[in-house]
Amino acid sequence: MSLTAARPNANTVNAIDLDADGVACHSSSGPADPLVGQASPRRIFVRGQLRCRLRLQHAGERELRIRYEAQGVDDAPWLIVQGGISAHRHVASCEQAGEAGWWEVQCGEGRAIDTRCFRVLAIDWLGSDGTLDVPLDCADQADAIATVLDALDIDHVQAYVGCSYGASVGLHFAVRHPRRLKQLVAIAGAHRPDIWALAQRKIQRGIVELGRSEQARVEALSLARQLAMLGYRTRGELAARFPQLPRQGDGGICHDSADWLDHVGAQYAARTPVTAWLRLSESLDLHCVDPHDVTTPTTVIAINQDQLVPPALVDELVNALPLPCRLHRISSLFGHDAFLKETTAIDTLLRSELGVAA
Amino acid sequence: MSLTAARPNANTVNAIDLDADGVACHSSSGPADPLVGQASPRRIFVRGQLRCRLRLQHAGERELRIRYEAQGVDDAPWLIVQGGISAHRHVASCEQAGEAGWWEVQCGEGRAIDTRCFRVLAIDWLGSDGTLDVPLDCADQADAIATVLDALDIDHVQAYVGCSYGASVGLHFAVRHPRRLKQLVAIAGAHRPDIWALAQRKIQRGIVELGRSEQARVEALSLARQLAMLGYRTRGELAARFPQLPRQGDGGICHDSADWLDHVGAQYAARTPVTAWLRLSESLDLHCVDPHDVTTPTTVIAINQDQLVPPALVDELVNALPLPCRLHRISSLFGHDAFLKETTAIDTLLRSELGVAA
Repeated sequence: MSLTAARPNANTVNAIDLDADGVACHSSSGPADPLVGQASPRRIFVRGQLRCRLRLQHAGERELRIRYEAQGVDDAPWLIVQGGISAHRHVASCEQAGEAGWWEVQCGEGRAIDTRCFRVLAIDWLGSDGTLDVPLDCADQADAIATVLDALDIDHVQAYVGCSYGASVGLHFAVRHPRRLKQLVAIAGAHRPDIWALAQRKIQRGIVELGRSEQARVEALSLARQLAMLGYRTRGELAARFPQLPRQGDGGICHDSADWLDHVGAQYAARTPVTAWLRLSESLDLHCVDPHDVTTPTTVIAINQDQLVPPALVDELVNALPLPCRLHRISSLFGHDAFLKETTAIDTLLRSELGVAA
Repeated sequence: MSLTAARPNANTVNAIDLDADGVACHSSSGPADPLVGQASPRRIFVRGQLRCRLRLQHAGERELRIRYEAQGVDDAPWLIVQGGISAHRHVASCEQAGEAGWWEVQCGEGRAIDTRCFRVLAIDWLGSDGTLDVPLDCADQADAIATVLDALDIDHVQAYVGCSYGASVGLHFAVRHPRRLKQLVAIAGAHRPDIWALAQRKIQRGIVELGRSEQARVEALSLARQLAMLGYRTRGELAARFPQLPRQGDGGICHDSADWLDHVGAQYAARTPVTAWLRLSESLDLHCVDPHDVTTPTTVIAINQDQLVPPALVDELVNALPLPCRLHRISSLFGHDAFLKETTAIDTLLRSELGVAA
């Protein structure tokens, strides 16, 4: 494992050990001894796991593990980058971790979130490994990030860039840890859930609960994901992608859109613990920030066709923010998923917001 | 049972018997002997059941029962009135059948569909009793209606007024039985399924299949109905109706919208056979008419906020109809369900189309 041979970086944490698969891990108790991979002078990479106690909003104080990853160049400003509920700490590949990240197109050397200019930090969402079966809150996620900052001795970050769920958490972070944040970039996120999206998630969780009792967990999670996908995308995308009409087949109605839904559902269900999905879905419903409490300079990037975070909800946020806020609107057939799909538009906006040359 | 004392009306059918609950029934074979209720001179009411063989589009020739109901005044022009997949032959209450019909607000004495001016005929959808577990098609429904017309010796009808699924069937009726129809009024319906709506129904059927075991049938059908309801209504209606934010309760997330969804889902699941629902859902997906084949004068009433039959799809229909077509658009927070909810607007349009004074 190349990481084990790397030298410590400037950050201090209280303790370190190796987890089961040999990835460098930090712990919040014990002597400082960080273990950090560095491929070339000044480049850093660390993938760690922090053990800590955290007081959760709805479940009291808990012993937790927070998994995080950081990459970039030493002494560069820190950025926090967080994605949707399916995203994770591995934002982008780098020399020490070649597997593709969830935001490969926007993060890396030469990308808008340029790892030659920044140190990028991200966590796996609390609860995302399925071992924490308690009500979670976006505020808990924000506190988890702050705990990692403490452990890594990062006083403040240049910016928090959050997409979807990550944007919701970013608003909580700004409210709960304002001193640590200079700039918030919230993409496809708002201060509270949309009621239609809430109702959609209620049904999605109902499907998953139905599958629990039916020995059909994976099938149920697949269906729930399929329903979620219809919210992430738009009517227009579906119509453009699957223009053919359905036909009666031996096993029921046949349509290309059904094959696609089955595929994306199965793929997601295979990699996602049911408990994780349920708890993160709930935490989206519980998410609520009073925009007046957000005193961090904020940029909001909204998608006109977003069904989960519709333009009117974004307006509600922007109009209530106490500081002047930059609002960028983009139009996309991909709806909510534009943050993943509209590579050029998001790249341009991120470069402008983060001051990275094209 | 008051019906048994009534005198025959002018219509002839081949045979008649009484079904189990004593309602007058007609059969397509045997001697003519219709049994018809009449509360006062010239007023008619008949609730019958026709046994016949019908060649179905996807399931060959089948022995079927078609349940129908008619009410109005003798010798008046006939109207066919058909609703959504949950609607049935009992359009409105009358003296002989006091239970509320599915379109009570538009049909009856003094209503837009005035039973003092018309004879109103409607069928229960083929498959709606859950005993016909084969692929059904809107064309089959149109043929079932034509079979009832034959049995009742009705040569032609003044107008076919169809809402939602009933509008789809109406377009098929116009194409397959053009000589029998003078006017088609299609409300919240189009010539083919919208692809987004198709994908929604795919997931709804997946939920129902997931719950196929005896223990979870009702729960699954309830969930599928809840999802359907979100398509029948609009984001705006939900937001206006349930403005409160959710909270974490002991059993999960609490929200008024969830209580409402559970209620409407349970209510529907209690009265609907799973097989009926699945087969009618499929038949919506299979529905496809070439608008160029519709040679009946047609009026289309579209709802701007309809998620199942969006305005663009209605435009596609209207632009392709060979005859001049009247298109009325209404705006409604209720979306697709406006045909049930926007009483005044629909009343006004129906009166104008059917020539009934206000």
